[in-house]
Amino acid sequence: MIYGKDKVSDIQIAYIGGGSRGWAWGLMADLAMDEQISGTLRLYDIDQTAARRNCQLGERLQQQPGVRSDWQYKVSDTLAEALTGADFVIISILPGTFAEMHSDVHTPEKYGVWQSVGDTVGPGGFVRALRTIPMFVEFAEGIKKYCPEAWVINYTNPMSVCVRTLYKVFPRIKAFGCCHEVFGTQKLLVSMLEDQEHLTARRQDIKVNVVGINHFTWFTEAAYQGQDLIPLYARFADQYYESGYTRGLDNNWMNNQFACSHRVKFDLFRRYRAIAAAGDRHLAEFCSGRVYLDNPGQVRQWGFSLTSVDWREQDLKERLARQQRLLDGREQMDLGGTGEEGHLQMKAILGLSEMVTNINLPNQGQIPNLPLGAVVETNAVLRSRAVRPVFSGNVPEAILPLVSRQVCNQENTVTAALTLDRKLAESTFANDPLLDRLTQAERRSLLAEMLQHTKAYLPAAWAL
Amino acid sequence: MIYGKDKVSDIQIAYIGGGSRGWAWGLMADLAMDEQISGTLRLYDIDQTAARRNCQLGERLQQQPGVRSDWQYKVSDTLAEALTGADFVIISILPGTFAEMHSDVHTPEKYGVWQSVGDTVGPGGFVRALRTIPMFVEFAEGIKKYCPEAWVINYTNPMSVCVRTLYKVFPRIKAFGCCHEVFGTQKLLVSMLEDQEHLTARRQDIKVNVVGINHFTWFTEAAYQGQDLIPLYARFADQYYESGYTRGLDNNWMNNQFACSHRVKFDLFRRYRAIAAAGDRHLAEFCSGRVYLDNPGQVRQWGFSLTSVDWREQDLKERLARQQRLLDGREQMDLGGTGEEGHLQMKAILGLSEMVTNINLPNQGQIPNLPLGAVVETNAVLRSRAVRPVFSGNVPEAILPLVSRQVCNQENTVTAALTLDRKLAESTFANDPLLDRLTQAERRSLLAEMLQHTKAYLPAAWAL
Amino acid sequence: MIYGKDKVSDIQIAYIGGGSRGWAWGLMADLAMDEQISGTLRLYDIDQTAARRNCQLGERLQQQPGVRSDWQYKVSDTLAEALTGADFVIISILPGTFAEMHSDVHTPEKYGVWQSVGDTVGPGGFVRALRTIPMFVEFAEGIKKYCPEAWVINYTNPMSVCVRTLYKVFPRIKAFGCCHEVFGTQKLLVSMLEDQEHLTARRQDIKVNVVGINHFTWFTEAAYQGQDLIPLYARFADQYYESGYTRGLDNNWMNNQFACSHRVKFDLFRRYRAIAAAGDRHLAEFCSGRVYLDNPGQVRQWGFSLTSVDWREQDLKERLARQQRLLDGREQMDLGGTGEEGHLQMKAILGLSEMVTNINLPNQGQIPNLPLGAVVETNAVLRSRAVRPVFSGNVPEAILPLVSRQVCNQENTVTAALTLDRKLAESTFANDPLLDRLTQAERRSLLAEMLQHTKAYLPAAWAL
Amino acid sequence: MIYGKDKVSDIQIAYIGGGSRGWAWGLMADLAMDEQISGTLRLYDIDQTAARRNCQLGERLQQQPGVRSDWQYKVSDTLAEALTGADFVIISILPGTFAEMHSDVHTPEKYGVWQSVGDTVGPGGFVRALRTIPMFVEFAEGIKKYCPEAWVINYTNPMSVCVRTLYKVFPRIKAFGCCHEVFGTQKLLVSMLEDQEHLTARRQDIKVNVVGINHFTWFTEAAYQGQDLIPLYARFADQYYESGYTRGLDNNWMNNQFACSHRVKFDLFRRYRAIAAAGDRHLAEFCSGRVYLDNPGQVRQWGFSLTSVDWREQDLKERLARQQRLLDGREQMDLGGTGEEGHLQMKAILGLSEMVTNINLPNQGQIPNLPLGAVVETNAVLRSRAVRPVFSGNVPEAILPLVSRQVCNQENTVTAALTLDRKLAESTFANDPLLDRLTQAERRSLLAEMLQHTKAYLPAAWAL
Repeated sequence: MIYGKDKVSDIQIAYIGGGSRGWAWGLMADLAMDEQISGTLRLYDIDQTAARRNCQLGERLQQQPGVRSDWQYKVSDTLAEALTGADFVIISILPGTFAEMHSDVHTPEKYGVWQSVGDTVGPGGFVRALRTIPMFVEFAEGIKKYCPEAWVINYTNPMSVCVRTLYKVFPRIKAFGCCHEVFGTQKLLVSMLEDQEHLTARRQDIKVNVVGINHFTWFTEAAYQGQDLIPLYARFADQYYESGYTRGLDNNWMNNQFACSHRVKFDLFRRYRAIAAAGDRHLAEFCSGRVYLDNPGQVRQWGFSLTSVDWREQDLKERLARQQRLLDGREQMDLGGTGEEGHLQMKAILGLSEMVTNINLPNQGQIPNLPLGAVVETNAVLRSRAVRPVFSGNVPEAILPLVSRQVCNQENTVTAALTLDRKLAESTFANDPLLDRLTQAERRSLLAEMLQHTKAYLPAAWAL
Repeated sequence: MIYGKDKVSDIQIAYIGGGSRGWAWGLMADLAMDEQISGTLRLYDIDQTAARRNCQLGERLQQQPGVRSDWQYKVSDTLAEALTGADFVIISILPGTFAEMHSDVHTPEKYGVWQSVGDTVGPGGFVRALRTIPMFVEFAEGIKKYCPEAWVINYTNPMSVCVRTLYKVFPRIKAFGCCHEVFGTQKLLVSMLEDQEHLTARRQDIKVNVVGINHFTWFTEAAYQGQDLIPLYARFADQYYESGYTRGLDNNWMNNQFACSHRVKFDLFRRYRAIAAAGDRHLAEFCSGRVYLDNPGQVRQWGFSLTSVDWREQDLKERLARQQRLLDGREQMDLGGTGEEGHLQMKAILGLSEMVTNINLPNQGQIPNLPLGAVVETNAVLRSRAVRPVFSGNVPEAILPLVSRQVCNQENTVTAALTLDRKLAESTFANDPLLDRLTQAERRSLLAEMLQHTKAYLPAAWAL
Repeated sequence: MIYGKDKVSDIQIAYIGGGSRGWAWGLMADLAMDEQISGTLRLYDIDQTAARRNCQLGERLQQQPGVRSDWQYKVSDTLAEALTGADFVIISILPGTFAEMHSDVHTPEKYGVWQSVGDTVGPGGFVRALRTIPMFVEFAEGIKKYCPEAWVINYTNPMSVCVRTLYKVFPRIKAFGCCHEVFGTQKLLVSMLEDQEHLTARRQDIKVNVVGINHFTWFTEAAYQGQDLIPLYARFADQYYESGYTRGLDNNWMNNQFACSHRVKFDLFRRYRAIAAAGDRHLAEFCSGRVYLDNPGQVRQWGFSLTSVDWREQDLKERLARQQRLLDGREQMDLGGTGEEGHLQMKAILGLSEMVTNINLPNQGQIPNLPLGAVVETNAVLRSRAVRPVFSGNVPEAILPLVSRQVCNQENTVTAALTLDRKLAESTFANDPLLDRLTQAERRSLLAEMLQHTKAYLPAAWAL
Repeated sequence: MIYGKDKVSDIQIAYIGGGSRGWAWGLMADLAMDEQISGTLRLYDIDQTAARRNCQLGERLQQQPGVRSDWQYKVSDTLAEALTGADFVIISILPGTFAEMHSDVHTPEKYGVWQSVGDTVGPGGFVRALRTIPMFVEFAEGIKKYCPEAWVINYTNPMSVCVRTLYKVFPRIKAFGCCHEVFGTQKLLVSMLEDQEHLTARRQDIKVNVVGINHFTWFTEAAYQGQDLIPLYARFADQYYESGYTRGLDNNWMNNQFACSHRVKFDLFRRYRAIAAAGDRHLAEFCSGRVYLDNPGQVRQWGFSLTSVDWREQDLKERLARQQRLLDGREQMDLGGTGEEGHLQMKAILGLSEMVTNINLPNQGQIPNLPLGAVVETNAVLRSRAVRPVFSGNVPEAILPLVSRQVCNQENTVTAALTLDRKLAESTFANDPLLDRLTQAERRSLLAEMLQHTKAYLPAAWAL
């Protein structure tokens, strides 16, 4: 890196999962428009073709009018090559193929277990974790060896266990996890302010205290310019409890398809008195199976939808087509800003700014009633050479049983994956709230089936 | 109290629930046979007739040949009278009548929720807690006012929340809770030693490390004369997994009817690798509803039984008949020793002996991975003027989610009961594993119904 | 309070110690120049004349050209009047008179114990605490009664025990303590950057991780625009170790007289490898008596000075003269900005901005290796309705014994003062590092003498 | 090991420091008289001659009339040989020779710093630690390699840092440290009971709650048969405060020469309201230098004595002469019981008994206000295959600063020794309370001198 006046150049960013057509494109667009930073994006992917395509896309982007910053794109053939000398490492991978994802999401349906996402918790999240954790072991070992001082930002799900794995393998790693679900709920509050008080606010001006774990995070405080938003939200949640609230839907590239009417969020508020801060699709998966995800009809009634893998395949096709158009010059990248914060976080760490935002970090006491070491989502201060969590206080007592159950499961998932402990895997899988409705035998049989389906991407020990 | 050579006389024991026909009779018999201690048993009960009957019984007992110690019996008309000047306070009450117990145990059956005991956790345990906690508030305030230095021993269920309430109301109270379920599992190990190795051991010589909460306690270590019993138990559990093990059934007055074949215990061992240390009837209630208590047929298959309130009523009739026989002199109290430890614990505290045994105390760090303050069951050292928990280590990681879920629920139950917080009551009730199988609406409706049934013994706020 | 567009008006600030001629004047000047906030400053002081003078000064100030904001000034006759309806409470009092301060600072000199300030720790700080804590009990009770939701900012020394007392008396108080000593060390780093690298930086751009207790705080990290300043400081400290560094002396109104050459700071760095972040006068008092404060000659060699009470009296005379000139219109307040942050902190809490700065708060885990509850100085995030500490990490192991000794003493000082426990007062006093050189008898005799001298302002129990 | 009926034979005990003429002889005598255990004592010592002599002594002892148990004696040529297959490992070594001890104890006297023992804390304890810790690294590595399941009992000083080192190197080690200083204070209470109340008690019947660190341990509770001994001790301490109490002096082989009149203990009680539980020689060394150890005259006034190395050399001569007489058959070992507990602790662990006694273990929460991991002295339960600390509560607040200062120093001593960190060594050494009276320069110079004197037994890095 080279420090200039309010600028840093020659920044080396290793992008693991560099063939990504989602997060990678967004980051490329955001970097291109930031005149304070420049350097090289090293794309590493086990799908080298995908990485090469993104490299071409990046080079093309640099030619696009309006671009303000000079970034080089490079494909790294090996993880070692990508990491050596890196200042930042970004991890956004897809662990396995759509075939594995299909099993994660749809196999449980045979047992009457429905998942709206299937990548975080639930049977799908668990099995996905089993195949992702060994990959993160490799990443952590690589970072320890090739760039121990680099800052590492993870976007991959299941977020909590991925970040936990990085720290288990290399405790001194400087890693954190980022997710935009909290932003979506801040935007809901922006929309509420407009709906209820005809006020126009920016997402960043909704100041929230964030407490929880990724995709099951809660606001225990929310304020706008000194105004307490909690009582307002109570009224708002009551007003739209039955109908749902569909204005102000999120336009983020990834969430757009995943809209919800916030009925789950409103219901959780009425039961627990804090604002659940993720999309309803995610929130529902953290609750006991019969509550929101009993069956597709109930899901519709709650105003959200089950994301099928078919849809994901279709969506990818469209992305690939778009990629071709971008490469052909028939279409140009949108440079209007993604709303994501990755580039801003890097800038803050580089000392070019200071920000307070929500990220995922091992618990060092920022949430006193969750175990130390567990990866939690709270606010943190990011600034010159430092990322430090803000003390966020306890998970509210009524919510604690829900959160701590998942935290236990996540800890045990990581341990089981690292030690290949089948008994622990079985008891952890069986303890997932979405499986509450099953008998013990069904839980065991479902796991066996799912492991069988995804064995191509699992350590041999799970195959039996 | 008056200290003599290896003796203490004039001990004042206040017995709250002094009309009890179970624990009280046992204690009376044990006291009568211990020549080192003597004094007065002050019987206090809202059922004064019952207290008077026990008083007569006590006086009669003192006449019985073979009795070794001189105890006076007295009925106390008020709590204040019982407590003033007391050295020890024993609490063993029945909160409410069989009508409330009937609702606790049987109302959930209409929803497909079966309970084998219904006094600890589960919907029955929860509602029982709501009516018991206010009584314990009164006891704690009385103790604080009339005998703050007295030692308090609780036998009442739900144990954990009762003891927690005492400490919440009067933090400096010297209280602990006692339960014989652990002894039953020690006896199972005695029987196992005979079965597997033809060894004759005494219960007290089975040295165990006790970790957990009342009725859901675990042995993480078990040894007999330096021999590690865990591997032996593993073999034993495998051998009798299918058939159950029915030798060596407990002859304790209370447990005799409650025999089990230990299949639940063996299953838990095979899944979690630690020895669950309570009767199967209790253990099953701490697990997700469909696992052991799915339906009466499944319960039979697992080799334990549902304790109906009808049975309890019949049992009481027999006790009353026996009481009459005892008073008439047609029958004599059994002075052979109950196997309970109440009198021994008092002797240890008086400095007449020293013992290490399992009791229920607020967590001060004896189990590091459970919250401070929660009432946990571990070993403790009882000796001259002191009861101190032994450091017992973590709940094993695989079991932690099960235990911590209940600990959360118990904390929230106490808070809800003390603050009359209906939302917290609802979310806590709904989080019970036995209700996992129900929809949210069913959980809410069941609670309303149970509160309605038991409202005679509940604070008015719950009636709504 | 009335919220407008980027403005808040009708803010009610209760100023306890409203006759102050230091902090009060600075705050008045800063408020006058901030166009986003306006309201009323309610001056309360046991010296009502002083409060009235400041009131006149405030009214005069509002007439001064260039003033941007509309503040009303009012004398409150009682604490209750000042607090009722207050949005903010500021506490900056002088506990006792110069006579007491004279004893605090100079009585120990007879025993060969020299203090450079005598208001924080050391024998002077201890006795000052004994007379200040009862006053803070009164303040906390008043705040609890009259304005429990108000934000409370304390400037009074001894800072840590004052803030601790507020929380002990009213645990839900929203109080924090502010001190500019850290700023002075940030300015030293600014000056270092100029001296070593010819860089011009602003204090606020020196990003530091702050760990410690007030007046004995440490930077474990320091960065400027992504550059690690620790290695630079190591070189700087070596270069100026012998000569001291006297450029860039602080021009803050209060510190100007209190300049130092940073030799103590450099010595501490060389011994402990972290940057001590307070004036050398303060730092020296936290160390064993013979190290920096052995005798006046040694103090001169280390390049700082002993602040005598004579000087303070002279300084006050000059302030009073200046006050007269200000009231007469012969002189005008300096409106150039004090560099203090009080008004900025209030604005952040009001939701008008967001800031990360160092403040004093009870430890909730922000420094894991200091006891929970002890008042520590770390960074915090101040923003809309919230002040939350930033996780700052452990006090470095080599420094921990020095800091934790003082933390223990401070805890015991508060307990002794609240319970009037003489034995605890004696052992706590005797444990002060500045008294290390004395025999036990001398320590006891010194305390007795100091209590005797200051008894006019002490609870009667200390008189004996 | 071979388990029989109430007996265990073929126990393998590795004795590191097997040439010891103190602890080894005592253990040999105690083992010889215990009919429940038998096996082999493997003597390992870098002084092979000494080990061989003890081997002969042991064989001779087995011939002695009245011996009840069959022990074999064997010299192990290497540590590996001694450890392989060991069930127990005992460590009682002398680190270095009398020359090093001479420097430890007497070099500081040139600076006006007097030590009464010089092997625990103070400048002598620190330098002794620097040369002992590397030896314990070797022991821990050996145990990890050759007998990871063995129970390890340490008697070597400085106790706390030796045990800490074992756990740092091999965290799963089953080690604890034993010391009889607490017994001495129990015996003082026995004598007090006789003196004050004409009661005859046994040491074991004085039930105490033990809180602190080795040689600076405190009784926060003491009871005899239900009687609270604290008020009695208060009276006793007052009565003998001036004169000292010299009855009932300890006849333990090691302490006999080290008698004290308990004036330090009484003074500590009057200042801190808890019973300091070690010999005054030890206690004094934990306090600020001018309090009890200002000069030899003050020491005499406080009624204890400085143990010179000359005396130790003379004492050794007598032991060697006695050894010769024992080998010649001119004298016989005393088989009356040493009062030490080593053999009893082993029996408890073997499952032959159960005991509650004070030992040194890493803090797992048994003392909540000391850091986790630090080696603390509290009660523990020893029984079949388990040694578990008893929850002992906080160090009383007034005493905490004294204890935590030493705990910090001990942690830093171990870190400095393991990492050869000179700065940390210097600051840790300088923070010892006995050096409070010295200037910084004197502290540094004293350390350099002591390191120079003892360099033959120190890692080269310290020589500089």
